[in-house]
Amino acid sequence: MKVGSRSMRTIWIAEDGRTVEIIDQTRLPHELSIVRLVNLADAARAIRDMQVRGAPLIGAAAAYGVALAMLEDVSDKGLENAVTALAATRPTAVNLRWSLDDMRRHLAELPVEQRFAAAIARAGEIADEDVAINRAIGEHGLRLIEAAHRRKRRRGPVQILTHCNAGWLATVDWGTALAPVYRAHDADIPVHVWVDETRPRNQGASLTAWELGQHGVPHTVIADNAGGHLMRHGEVDLCITGTDRTTASGDVANKIGTYLKALAAADNAIPFYVALPSPTIDWDLDRGDLIPIEQRSPREVTHIAGWTEAGERVEVRLTPADSPAANYGFDVTPARLVTALITERGVCPASREGLLRLFPERRRHAA
Amino acid sequence: MKVGSRSMRTIWIAEDGRTVEIIDQTRLPHELSIVRLVNLADAARAIRDMQVRGAPLIGAAAAYGVALAMLEDVSDKGLENAVTALAATRPTAVNLRWSLDDMRRHLAELPVEQRFAAAIARAGEIADEDVAINRAIGEHGLRLIEAAHRRKRRRGPVQILTHCNAGWLATVDWGTALAPVYRAHDADIPVHVWVDETRPRNQGASLTAWELGQHGVPHTVIADNAGGHLMRHGEVDLCITGTDRTTASGDVANKIGTYLKALAAADNAIPFYVALPSPTIDWDLDRGDLIPIEQRSPREVTHIAGWTEAGERVEVRLTPADSPAANYGFDVTPARLVTALITERGVCPASREGLLRLFPERRRHAA
Repeated sequence: MKVGSRSMRTIWIAEDGRTVEIIDQTRLPHELSIVRLVNLADAARAIRDMQVRGAPLIGAAAAYGVALAMLEDVSDKGLENAVTALAATRPTAVNLRWSLDDMRRHLAELPVEQRFAAAIARAGEIADEDVAINRAIGEHGLRLIEAAHRRKRRRGPVQILTHCNAGWLATVDWGTALAPVYRAHDADIPVHVWVDETRPRNQGASLTAWELGQHGVPHTVIADNAGGHLMRHGEVDLCITGTDRTTASGDVANKIGTYLKALAAADNAIPFYVALPSPTIDWDLDRGDLIPIEQRSPREVTHIAGWTEAGERVEVRLTPADSPAANYGFDVTPARLVTALITERGVCPASREGLLRLFPERRRHAA
Repeated sequence: MKVGSRSMRTIWIAEDGRTVEIIDQTRLPHELSIVRLVNLADAARAIRDMQVRGAPLIGAAAAYGVALAMLEDVSDKGLENAVTALAATRPTAVNLRWSLDDMRRHLAELPVEQRFAAAIARAGEIADEDVAINRAIGEHGLRLIEAAHRRKRRRGPVQILTHCNAGWLATVDWGTALAPVYRAHDADIPVHVWVDETRPRNQGASLTAWELGQHGVPHTVIADNAGGHLMRHGEVDLCITGTDRTTASGDVANKIGTYLKALAAADNAIPFYVALPSPTIDWDLDRGDLIPIEQRSPREVTHIAGWTEAGERVEVRLTPADSPAANYGFDVTPARLVTALITERGVCPASREGLLRLFPERRRHAA
């Protein structure tokens, strides 16, 4: 999408054809910093430290990580090591595992001398597939925003609440939850996005606000606490979030706090949509409460980084020095609170039957 | 309550008998700073800038503010000016109005030369009444915590979630929501408090965590987003919050985000209690959606202050410079989501009938 007048993706092969470049998302919204990844350790660190984040982008970055690892050790053992190291970086994201399995399957059968070139090519395909999927999600989601615009008789902008960042920065391009928003905005349907700041890492306040602003989409940042109040006062027409993992039954794991917004939407009869590329579906998992929830460092709660007026990045403590903190990365929103899922194949109810109607090839799997 | 080994209140008459001292709560948790209020402007500023906050403490501070104003202009006009200036500082808090009405009624009938002494005495009574009320709330709420302890067969601590700060710092002493917690802790019932950080002003992370820590109560700070996840996983036995205004029908206005926690508690069959001194009840108001909701500066969302490792207070920007923000101070939790109200006269259902059983003298008023 657009950064000022420049069209960018979040990850790409550098000009040398042997290294990978990313936008360092920990520097946003204050600085557009490009980081070069040279080896497996760079890629693993970029994922673990959330320089790249968002389930689809993590998948693409992991694929490129395997490719970079092939420059260091092209053996079967090297391939296994790369997969193991990258799989350990973020336990909740299912795309990570999906992408690593794909790369392993693809490379294991090849002679070692072909592996690097094949890995770079396959990683590129995974990235391009993500872009195509998200473009399709945007098309299907656009219909829902158009419907909301008609429901309010085209009076005023369609008010959309989103949580965390499921925009193009969370993917290779377009985004998942925000793809329909960009499509609607580009199609001259007036939209306004309520951006949950998304504590503790503030991906909404820093990333979603930044990318919407760069693309010219009207938006307002709010504390995570505010969404319920807005919904009770008719200020939200629909919610769209992304998901890190969706069960075969339609439960969705997403950034901590998503469940609270889904409850508020249900309490106020507001549609709550979850946008997801199908690689995010965990067909092996039936119940959301079985999804392992990542616990991250308490320091993300007790401290926060921001920028001073002088443009200096400073980290400050928010809590008493002796007070412990806990930091759960995700929660699970049960399918009953999700109005519909938006996938690259269309919109469906958040249920096993709904998903299988769009992905009939999984029926065998499900039986 | 205790600050280290020292027993403190949040507001008191200075030794000179003519000025008032407060704990500057904007400096907590990093610094215990005592501020002297000399005149009406000092008192109004202390309330507006939230050096003192919390509905009951605002009421007491406003009463002392009227007393200080009597040193400057003891005339009827001076009294009216003081009431008007103080009423404008925080529009949502009903205690503020209640306390100002009480002071005006009390002083208007007195000869001007008696007004200052009478004002100081009456403000002291209002402060002492608050302490007595909160002590009683603690006694009644203690029974609910004891019951939760029995329900879990005394295995492990009673897990209590609270939002914002309704501890002794929000009152003159004891607190409202936290009074039962202090009573339980002092009675050797094991308790552990999940402290919502309470964006955007972080009263939980800074004030609730600080006062619980000073009193030795086990607690853990969490992002506001985390409470739903904890409730789904059996990590919360009950919720207790305070309220800034309760309608005659049991709807409660409280810090933004309270409604979301009440929804999660209801979804998980967890008791959700609201502790309130009866001056917080607005007997004239029947519907929560009629409570005016204060909108505060967007800067509280876009910027945050904290302390560096070097002990320096620094304010940093969290959002892109061009992104607007909105900042709603409160939301309204409908009575249907409140398990019970804890008042100084006992525990009752969140309903007109429930409140009138405890406050039968209001029946005439309600008819």
